[in-house]
Amino acid sequence: MITATYLIHDDKDLAKKAEGIALGLTVGSWTDLPQLEQEQLKKHKGIVDCIEQLDEDERVNTYFGKRLKRALVRISYPSVNFSADFPAILTTTFGKLSLDGTIKLVDLTFSDELKRAFPGPRFGMDGIREKLGVFDRPLVMSIFKAVIGRDLQYVTEQLKLQALGGVDLVKDDEILFDNDLTPFEKRIVAGKQALQDVYEQTGHRTLYAVNLTGKTFELKDKARRAAELGADVLLFNVFTYGLDVLQALREDDDIRLPIMAHPSFSGAIASSHVYGVSYALLLGKLLRMAGADFSLFPSPYGSVALEKQQALAISEELTKEDLFLRAFPVPSAGIHPGLVPLLMRDFGIDCVINAGGGVHGHPQGAVGGGQAFRAAVEAVLSGRSLHEAATENEALKQALDLWGSA
Amino acid sequence: MITATYLIHDDKDLAKKAEGIALGLTVGSWTDLPQLEQEQLKKHKGIVDCIEQLDEDERVNTYFGKRLKRALVRISYPSVNFSADFPAILTTTFGKLSLDGTIKLVDLTFSDELKRAFPGPRFGMDGIREKLGVFDRPLVMSIFKAVIGRDLQYVTEQLKLQALGGVDLVKDDEILFDNDLTPFEKRIVAGKQALQDVYEQTGHRTLYAVNLTGKTFELKDKARRAAELGADVLLFNVFTYGLDVLQALREDDDIRLPIMAHPSFSGAIASSHVYGVSYALLLGKLLRMAGADFSLFPSPYGSVALEKQQALAISEELTKEDLFLRAFPVPSAGIHPGLVPLLMRDFGIDCVINAGGGVHGHPQGAVGGGQAFRAAVEAVLSGRSLHEAATENEALKQALDLWGSA
Ligand SMILES: [Mg+2]
Ligand SMILES: [Mg+2]
Repeated sequence: MITATYLIHDDKDLAKKAEGIALGLTVGSWTDLPQLEQEQLKKHKGIVDCIEQLDEDERVNTYFGKRLKRALVRISYPSVNFSADFPAILTTTFGKLSLDGTIKLVDLTFSDELKRAFPGPRFGMDGIREKLGVFDRPLVMSIFKAVIGRDLQYVTEQLKLQALGGVDLVKDDEILFDNDLTPFEKRIVAGKQALQDVYEQTGHRTLYAVNLTGKTFELKDKARRAAELGADVLLFNVFTYGLDVLQALREDDDIRLPIMAHPSFSGAIASSHVYGVSYALLLGKLLRMAGADFSLFPSPYGSVALEKQQALAISEELTKEDLFLRAFPVPSAGIHPGLVPLLMRDFGIDCVINAGGGVHGHPQGAVGGGQAFRAAVEAVLSGRSLHEAATENEALKQALDLWGSA
Repeated sequence: MITATYLIHDDKDLAKKAEGIALGLTVGSWTDLPQLEQEQLKKHKGIVDCIEQLDEDERVNTYFGKRLKRALVRISYPSVNFSADFPAILTTTFGKLSLDGTIKLVDLTFSDELKRAFPGPRFGMDGIREKLGVFDRPLVMSIFKAVIGRDLQYVTEQLKLQALGGVDLVKDDEILFDNDLTPFEKRIVAGKQALQDVYEQTGHRTLYAVNLTGKTFELKDKARRAAELGADVLLFNVFTYGLDVLQALREDDDIRLPIMAHPSFSGAIASSHVYGVSYALLLGKLLRMAGADFSLFPSPYGSVALEKQQALAISEELTKEDLFLRAFPVPSAGIHPGLVPLLMRDFGIDCVINAGGGVHGHPQGAVGGGQAFRAAVEAVLSGRSLHEAATENEALKQALDLWGSA
């Protein structure tokens, strides 16, 4: 059984519309069926669980130029109707319905039996922490910057500098694809060597998330090869492929690598308040079920911002008690060290603090940037203000001077 | 080279925003780069081609509660930056950008060189017409109705009745997945036999589009098996998988079956006027490039309606002069015989007229429904009104009595 929650704006009778959905997406018709057929089809019939009337939204009424009733509608679809895969589930619950008026898919609730058909993260938060040996603080991640058109030596040097700053993870830019200058396999091998050098020099371990790209049916082979070459983590633009592709990468026992889901293209599906799919469902619940170990999303504070409530709802879906391992929330975009107290207040220690410009743009470069982030995290953990901590940490001081604090 | 056209609503300086996109999605920064690096990176740099200022949209301003500048912004991205596949292209042109404010991807223009990396339809409109031997009229398609929970005999009988009415194509309901009662392979085999029986009885040939469903990495094997069993056409819920998966099915020379793309879930991406991707791009240009032979979309006239301009724009993208074969526009949803003149006025003879309830709900059942549609098409072709034609065709008369005409 799967229960879908929809936000519907409509000027017609909502009870009738809901019943039309429940039947239209399952057995087609009901009241005109003979008794015997009703018996046969009963277990296939969709059910309207409830219609929660909401206040009208004047903004929406004004936009559409008419008064629209507004409600949360819950409809349950029997599992016997569909195969236990995301394409079938999305088609059943929001296939043609996605085209049918002003309707948004807010949530999907899966029965435990149905959940068991999905893997969840292979490593999860605890598995990633084991790999890093870091258990009691948020992780810090930085992103390669402006590496398109650059050669392997440039990219490797940038990786090294980021690791030297003390970040736990470095991720490829999601727009870096396979290319002649820095091909996938070479990035893995050279990156591994660079991070090993840093480890031998400093004792600090950094993981590198390499961008898995290319044609869908070549991804598994590429990912297996990445695993053989000792890759740490796969970065994956899941929404330009499909949730089921992510799941397949997660389930392949010859791959066995953590997967970092990038929200690329998800804004096309989740930005509207009245259409599409909610961020919490898309970047939270479904990514976790499909097997992402990390989910990136815009934080409420940076340049590309998500509403705070949406960002928190994603995080809640990734980490709440469930059959699946927990996945790391990665609030991103426009993050600088001064925002660390806000991020830790909102997301606690079980998140990854992720920055691009806030690392590379530091007066001392990526090394200083990473140090400033690590110092900011330490300050919050020890209950000190950033400004207090900055008196003893030059990198943090420079970051606060440049970007301020919240 | 690929050029993206965005519709942007923003209260900030649009020229600055556009330049930020062009750089942020390619080389990262520019003016602060040394001359030598500018030389090296020049061929990777994104370019703002133009900013076409539009009048403000008061509805949008009111909704967001502020005055937003409105413009079409065209930005070109060099092909050298990405691999020639849809995931890379969507990530480059509308990856993180999809999350960045009030922005919609309206169009993508591909250089001919880049186009050549995509297959287009294998059969196209002409290839489908060859299969059917029908060259001078719109095709007529009907959809299985309420077959969830029904057995193979029921489904086969329904197929036969539809074919007997004279429709050219019958498609599975997109919510019919692999199931114990009517599994994929059995539907193909039994369907083929039923349609052969009708052919022997009447000389009329009908093609059956079977719904290809399940896990992504099992689709190719299933489709190959379908081809071996003599399937006519594959129906595919492409937007719950990915455009690249459709392309892979098209390109596999062991499959070689026409592909009918269903718009399931596309409303989640294309419904909003200010976010997401335009229908013309998604259901028109990209589906055709990826290799769909048919693209279904809501007609402007039925129960689930698309704005007329959007429906026509989809059709235009599917059929205009290009490197690729033409694909069939399939305006759908709530179509009855009385709408045929409108559909043919809008879409000409090179479309598929597709109906569910408008076939099965006919007083004489699916047989009468198909006959009424065929008679309506003949009437329009011979320049007669439907009412005139109905004086000589009882099935059409009954349809007009029941549903009226436009
Ligand atoms: Mg990036
Ligand atoms: Mg249907």
